[in-house]
Amino acid sequence: MKTLIKNGTVVNSTGTASADVLIDGETIAAVLAPGSHLLGFDIEKNVDTVIDATGKYVIPGGVDAHTHMEMPFGGTNASDTFETGTRAAAWGGTTSIVDFVVQYPDQNVLDQYHAWHEKAAGNCAIDYGFHQILSDVQDSSLVAMDELIKEGVSSFKLFMAYKGVFLSDDGQILRAFQKGAQNGALMMMHAENGAVIDVLVKQAIEAGNTSPYYHGLTRPWQAEEEATHRAIMIANLTGAPLYVVHVSAKQAVEQIAHARDLGQNVFGETCPQYLYLSLEEQLGAPGFEGAKWVCSTPLRSRAEGHQHHMWQALRTNDIQMVSTDHCPFCMKGQKDMGIGDFSKIPNGIGSVEHRMDLLYQGVVEGNISLERWVEVTSTTPSRMFGMYGKKGVIQPGADADVVVYNPNGHTSIGLNKTHHMNMDYSAWEGFEIDGHVDTVLSRGKVIVDGDEYVGAKGDGKYFKRGLSQYLI
Amino acid sequence: MKTLIKNGTVVNSTGTASADVLIDGETIAAVLAPGSHLLGFDIEKNVDTVIDATGKYVIPGGVDAHTHMEMPFGGTNASDTFETGTRAAAWGGTTSIVDFVVQYPDQNVLDQYHAWHEKAAGNCAIDYGFHQILSDVQDSSLVAMDELIKEGVSSFKLFMAYKGVFLSDDGQILRAFQKGAQNGALMMMHAENGAVIDVLVKQAIEAGNTSPYYHGLTRPWQAEEEATHRAIMIANLTGAPLYVVHVSAKQAVEQIAHARDLGQNVFGETCPQYLYLSLEEQLGAPGFEGAKWVCSTPLRSRAEGHQHHMWQALRTNDIQMVSTDHCPFCMKGQKDMGIGDFSKIPNGIGSVEHRMDLLYQGVVEGNISLERWVEVTSTTPSRMFGMYGKKGVIQPGADADVVVYNPNGHTSIGLNKTHHMNMDYSAWEGFEIDGHVDTVLSRGKVIVDGDEYVGAKGDGKYFKRGLSQYLI
Amino acid sequence: MKTLIKNGTVVNSTGTASADVLIDGETIAAVLAPGSHLLGFDIEKNVDTVIDATGKYVIPGGVDAHTHMEMPFGGTNASDTFETGTRAAAWGGTTSIVDFVVQYPDQNVLDQYHAWHEKAAGNCAIDYGFHQILSDVQDSSLVAMDELIKEGVSSFKLFMAYKGVFLSDDGQILRAFQKGAQNGALMMMHAENGAVIDVLVKQAIEAGNTSPYYHGLTRPWQAEEEATHRAIMIANLTGAPLYVVHVSAKQAVEQIAHARDLGQNVFGETCPQYLYLSLEEQLGAPGFEGAKWVCSTPLRSRAEGHQHHMWQALRTNDIQMVSTDHCPFCMKGQKDMGIGDFSKIPNGIGSVEHRMDLLYQGVVEGNISLERWVEVTSTTPSRMFGMYGKKGVIQPGADADVVVYNPNGHTSIGLNKTHHMNMDYSAWEGFEIDGHVDTVLSRGKVIVDGDEYVGAKGDGKYFKRGLSQYLI
Amino acid sequence: MKTLIKNGTVVNSTGTASADVLIDGETIAAVLAPGSHLLGFDIEKNVDTVIDATGKYVIPGGVDAHTHMEMPFGGTNASDTFETGTRAAAWGGTTSIVDFVVQYPDQNVLDQYHAWHEKAAGNCAIDYGFHQILSDVQDSSLVAMDELIKEGVSSFKLFMAYKGVFLSDDGQILRAFQKGAQNGALMMMHAENGAVIDVLVKQAIEAGNTSPYYHGLTRPWQAEEEATHRAIMIANLTGAPLYVVHVSAKQAVEQIAHARDLGQNVFGETCPQYLYLSLEEQLGAPGFEGAKWVCSTPLRSRAEGHQHHMWQALRTNDIQMVSTDHCPFCMKGQKDMGIGDFSKIPNGIGSVEHRMDLLYQGVVEGNISLERWVEVTSTTPSRMFGMYGKKGVIQPGADADVVVYNPNGHTSIGLNKTHHMNMDYSAWEGFEIDGHVDTVLSRGKVIVDGDEYVGAKGDGKYFKRGLSQYLI
Repeated sequence: MKTLIKNGTVVNSTGTASADVLIDGETIAAVLAPGSHLLGFDIEKNVDTVIDATGKYVIPGGVDAHTHMEMPFGGTNASDTFETGTRAAAWGGTTSIVDFVVQYPDQNVLDQYHAWHEKAAGNCAIDYGFHQILSDVQDSSLVAMDELIKEGVSSFKLFMAYKGVFLSDDGQILRAFQKGAQNGALMMMHAENGAVIDVLVKQAIEAGNTSPYYHGLTRPWQAEEEATHRAIMIANLTGAPLYVVHVSAKQAVEQIAHARDLGQNVFGETCPQYLYLSLEEQLGAPGFEGAKWVCSTPLRSRAEGHQHHMWQALRTNDIQMVSTDHCPFCMKGQKDMGIGDFSKIPNGIGSVEHRMDLLYQGVVEGNISLERWVEVTSTTPSRMFGMYGKKGVIQPGADADVVVYNPNGHTSIGLNKTHHMNMDYSAWEGFEIDGHVDTVLSRGKVIVDGDEYVGAKGDGKYFKRGLSQYLI
Repeated sequence: MKTLIKNGTVVNSTGTASADVLIDGETIAAVLAPGSHLLGFDIEKNVDTVIDATGKYVIPGGVDAHTHMEMPFGGTNASDTFETGTRAAAWGGTTSIVDFVVQYPDQNVLDQYHAWHEKAAGNCAIDYGFHQILSDVQDSSLVAMDELIKEGVSSFKLFMAYKGVFLSDDGQILRAFQKGAQNGALMMMHAENGAVIDVLVKQAIEAGNTSPYYHGLTRPWQAEEEATHRAIMIANLTGAPLYVVHVSAKQAVEQIAHARDLGQNVFGETCPQYLYLSLEEQLGAPGFEGAKWVCSTPLRSRAEGHQHHMWQALRTNDIQMVSTDHCPFCMKGQKDMGIGDFSKIPNGIGSVEHRMDLLYQGVVEGNISLERWVEVTSTTPSRMFGMYGKKGVIQPGADADVVVYNPNGHTSIGLNKTHHMNMDYSAWEGFEIDGHVDTVLSRGKVIVDGDEYVGAKGDGKYFKRGLSQYLI
Repeated sequence: MKTLIKNGTVVNSTGTASADVLIDGETIAAVLAPGSHLLGFDIEKNVDTVIDATGKYVIPGGVDAHTHMEMPFGGTNASDTFETGTRAAAWGGTTSIVDFVVQYPDQNVLDQYHAWHEKAAGNCAIDYGFHQILSDVQDSSLVAMDELIKEGVSSFKLFMAYKGVFLSDDGQILRAFQKGAQNGALMMMHAENGAVIDVLVKQAIEAGNTSPYYHGLTRPWQAEEEATHRAIMIANLTGAPLYVVHVSAKQAVEQIAHARDLGQNVFGETCPQYLYLSLEEQLGAPGFEGAKWVCSTPLRSRAEGHQHHMWQALRTNDIQMVSTDHCPFCMKGQKDMGIGDFSKIPNGIGSVEHRMDLLYQGVVEGNISLERWVEVTSTTPSRMFGMYGKKGVIQPGADADVVVYNPNGHTSIGLNKTHHMNMDYSAWEGFEIDGHVDTVLSRGKVIVDGDEYVGAKGDGKYFKRGLSQYLI
Repeated sequence: MKTLIKNGTVVNSTGTASADVLIDGETIAAVLAPGSHLLGFDIEKNVDTVIDATGKYVIPGGVDAHTHMEMPFGGTNASDTFETGTRAAAWGGTTSIVDFVVQYPDQNVLDQYHAWHEKAAGNCAIDYGFHQILSDVQDSSLVAMDELIKEGVSSFKLFMAYKGVFLSDDGQILRAFQKGAQNGALMMMHAENGAVIDVLVKQAIEAGNTSPYYHGLTRPWQAEEEATHRAIMIANLTGAPLYVVHVSAKQAVEQIAHARDLGQNVFGETCPQYLYLSLEEQLGAPGFEGAKWVCSTPLRSRAEGHQHHMWQALRTNDIQMVSTDHCPFCMKGQKDMGIGDFSKIPNGIGSVEHRMDLLYQGVVEGNISLERWVEVTSTTPSRMFGMYGKKGVIQPGADADVVVYNPNGHTSIGLNKTHHMNMDYSAWEGFEIDGHVDTVLSRGKVIVDGDEYVGAKGDGKYFKRGLSQYLI
């Protein structure tokens, strides 16, 4: 199968080029000056398919490095399976995800790793990789880290919150980080002080403050800033590189920026919800409505300026990339477990379908540049997580994961509109985007064509990742 | 003229690709998967020239955004003409320079701009652009800024030192910055507190401290840090983007980093001399020897750690790029004017030929990554100064300014070795580089082939630059 | 003359004591446990006067280290003479001032010093010292600095604004600071970037923005922050201690705090107007009304939070003390010179009478502690300017400059109320204070008794100051 | 008993006065101009004792706010009893201590409080107060906090290290801090990340690194900096004032300074060992010798500059005061439990006798001023811990805790010299002090007279403290 995408504007992370993209099989064969001819040779006549991208952007497919498909949590499972979740991702121009293998205390890391492979294999619409979650950091877990790197799992996530579920204590974190410093793994951190939060939550519930709004109030920015700083110091002590997930507080950004100014390898990811949504507007919605946006770290106060600061940090590269932390739960039967007690609401927002659109809107509104859009959604995630070259760039030899994005199109987000995630509500209901995902190719195969999904379950393969490119 | 560079490793600023590069005329026609065939079409048979880059890096030609060819200064002229200087640049893998049009007080900006065109036209080995220096910021100078942007001069440099020669007072700087905030020009600054330095110099000379070493002592880091901060604040007040040239003090880097953390558009350039050379070793050489390295900002103390910090800042992007501030003077007849009075030594070091090599050595020694080498020497200068797309990247449509760099080659720097600059000494005598510039193409024409210069005077054309890509 | 102040609460800068104060002649003879007896000796019977301070605070008299009595400026003179101004000070519980000897360019420093002595001698109600202003920093000025220290003038003020009037360029500042580093003088700085301000003022006037409000807008915080940083760096370079006068911008405070965190001897003074008044409310008053509050540095925006931050800095000792910058002008015949052109409004506010009351109100409102009130208004000014021991403390051997302050009294400020300054308006009209200056003694003589002034012209003597106590 | 101390130089925290001090019974009756007469009344004739302090300093007795007399720790007890320890303190010019009541997990706070009273009552040479240690923060502990404030225990210490012994988790700390924010208690923190340290210690021992030097290496500055930041954030979240004990790392100082710059009520104490001793010189002594200086936080690296920075912080008030953390253990039978395993060495250094001398030497060597000496050793401890007025100042009504210090005397520290602590070695062997404690009075009674101890067991009484004066 040979495909020519012609006359588009190729956008990479440093700029644009008017160029045609030739795909041969699963990979990009060439990037050429437009015109469909090369030294007199007529390319268009020698390919199977021609996609006309006139007036459109041709970008590397989105890489969402933070998803939780069908994750077991709080007695239920995230509502998207690998099948439904990756298909929704494809609809939205994302062609790779990196999902998290969960290890709960006393479980064996490698067992879990294999279990996750079973869940995903044959079900995905797009390529997928795995990070490994470590909870109790057993001796065997440290050994497993070396094993997993060979398997293409080069990043390991720990939690400073969720006692008894995910939380590692600082000594466990230290040991895992020491291993990361040795073997080149990137250490990821959910940075919130769980011990502090647990007390605040208990006090709130006891005081009768049970509505979703209190989810936000009981996870204050101090808890995030503190844990971020702590993770940075343990990383400093060990020499491990650190990647802080779902940064939402401006004070946490300041900690990351400060460490970077001192030369430490510290990186931060934010999510669309921390750029657009807020404590006051969403979590503070009347009644139980706010449950739709219960996620951790929580939405922050707009009055305190976190959202504004997060866009700024995205511009100045104090925050390096944007993932979704896609972890969807339905209101009925899932979120509603928390009626009368916000602490029982499953934590998570579903956004895997909308990340590329939501960030493109940031371009439209002048918050980031066009190149930066591609950088934070595709190029940097690929470089950060050892996928670059195959993913995250339009160049010969790369996997032909390509999105044709139409800046003159329009996308209305909402449950009865573009929504394909397995959720009974949309966290982004009513958002209007001045652009549209027109065509999506995954390793050379068109899987989204206009408003039709033309891919198949199992199109996506496991992606064996290398080490992070950011490590020196 | 059609050329195929085959089997090399193309390095762009985000990573590498095994790819062939096809050049048709002056531009890159395609970047292709290696193998010299495309859909059965034999490329190699259809080109005029084939360059085998097996085992070598294929990189966008270097862009040196800070040179002073034949600049009149202190009663003499920089010893490289546009002809000798650009030819030396070509030897070293640099295919574009941006030189400075000088305007001294009471001179007319546009007159000077035209005079510089006359000097350069027909003489250059590689493409060249111009920045405009503003000294006294006349009303007509502000009008000229708009004119010059149309002419492709989108960056303007002011000085906080050299009273009566270059210095603009803060009110003049303010007015120029206000204009830059309006018309999108990038404001460049020589940031040293000249008033303070003038007193220290006078005191040193009066005290009989006349050797070149005192050039360094009379331009302390405080003078640079202070002026850097001042320029940042005037930029903050006006909203103009700021680019600080030849940053050498770590404290100045901290000022730049801090402003960026607060979201301000502030950028910094350093030079090879601030990465490798020092106050103690070079300026402090016996007798008058130190005069070879008299430049401003001065070489800094290694004991204070500036060099180490500068590499770090280059890694963390607190310093965005590396230029040379190439401003060569001979020891005989020029530098020696300062025997007995260091303040009469013409300020400048010649490095235009060695920048690509010296920075590559930083890759070899683990100070920066391979991609970062290309980024700080070519991609970022191109983006910063409105040249990207044509320069700074290997992609279709770009000018075919390409360097084949051999990581298995070797380069010995020295007056009787690789040196082609019009200087009677080398500031880099004895430096050994674990790499070599094998082939250099300028707009599709091979101008350096192995150890032979095969280009011609006048190959280089004026490059009309656009606005900086870094402005939002 | 022997006086006993009995049963009061003596407040020093570290705390309080229930104690009697015995004055013998001009000095404090003893501080004693209350009860008027000592080892059986009846003190009350052996003194001439007894002041009952039951329920009142007994504090060291206020030291206002920044006044400009009858200062020639802008073609007029500050409206308070040494006679009227020091009498008003006495009314308000201030028993010492340090006024500024003005030296304009080309004037001789020592001549000016003597001229100021002539103005003040025999006219003052309270003791007075002098700082010396240096404008053009002649060679003779540096010599004079040594002379003046012997005369009791141990602090020297320079200006970074007011070109042609006060401004010293950075080279001149450097030379003065070098001298200060040698002879132990404290270097004071009016830190505003005059060159930037002059352009902004000219532009505002040309644009027809002539009302007093534009005085504030044309002296933005950036101009203050920048100059503060610059002064700090020149001080750093020379090793001179630095005292920044009338700090009004929170960003300038941050510069001072940062330098102190790094161990540099940098101090900051603020004034009541920067704690209470604002750009929006006062400078933005309708019509020409805002002229009443035209002073430099200007009142700052309350929306930006400067006032709030200034109280905080006073608590955390990032700002060490409070002076008035008393420089009064009448609306009629003085301020009104600026109708139609705010830049012609004489700069200055009169507050010498109200400082002690205004700061006490800060105690009432919980902004500072009682001890801190005494510290910032009396003890620290005395230590900072070489007066401590005689001034700024209630202890044996100290000058008996004592104020009995009634926390149950009340003071209404206003032109027809407590105002005694020679001004036709009050900058503090309508301020209500929950306390009252009941009795004021100057070197043992009661000069204010209840609501009566009982002192005389000439009570005050010149105070020969030593070096600042803050220097190590 | 009436005593006159005549002709001395009284030193308070803001300066000096030539003054006589009259003591009547247990309190200071008056501070008087020298000459022994008051209004003709001859004081000298009316007192029982006259102490001639000509040429000497008369200072408020030292207040050591951090001691651990006979503390049970690691299966042994600190070797000084309340009797021996307070007597040694008296020898060294310290007239008050605040000791720590220990509560281990599951113990009842009030029971422990009463037990400590029993240990101390009738045994002390000088006055003593108590802080309360909280380990597991039971519900009853929070109630006890209110009780204890009424008992004069207004400060509570928690630990972030020593798991199973002292450590409180962050949720427990939060709860205690919430209570402190309510009732005005000052929250004290041992700020080291115990979880991290425990792993490092285990790894060191397993690797055979068992000598005392590894005590330092396994408690790196990052562990202190991190915990300090964490404590600050929990304090920020609750609004509690925070006092960090035994700060030794410069990076921890930076955290404290930064929080203070932002207006938070955070204070820091250092100890003589962190000013004078180092990892390299003391902990790194040959063999098991380093055990003498095993304490936590540990001695820091001189190469890293901690000691130099700590003196600076003491000057700039980023560190507010100096205590000893007196916790003595003998080498024989105690420290030697750690031969072959540094982690079994009881942690502690004995310095209660030498603090005043060691800090005075800082005056002699120009590190702090004379006033600052009194401030950091007596006045600030008294203000910080609710003792001021009675302690920490020479003023009428104050307890007559007075030291006559001779700047022309000399003190040689060493086991066979001035040492009176119950230890079989001196951590300060060989230190020479250019000054001497000549006379010590405790509540009016001379207890040290020249080189004789003339006090008695039981002279010292329990001191019921008020709230910290530093809280607004």
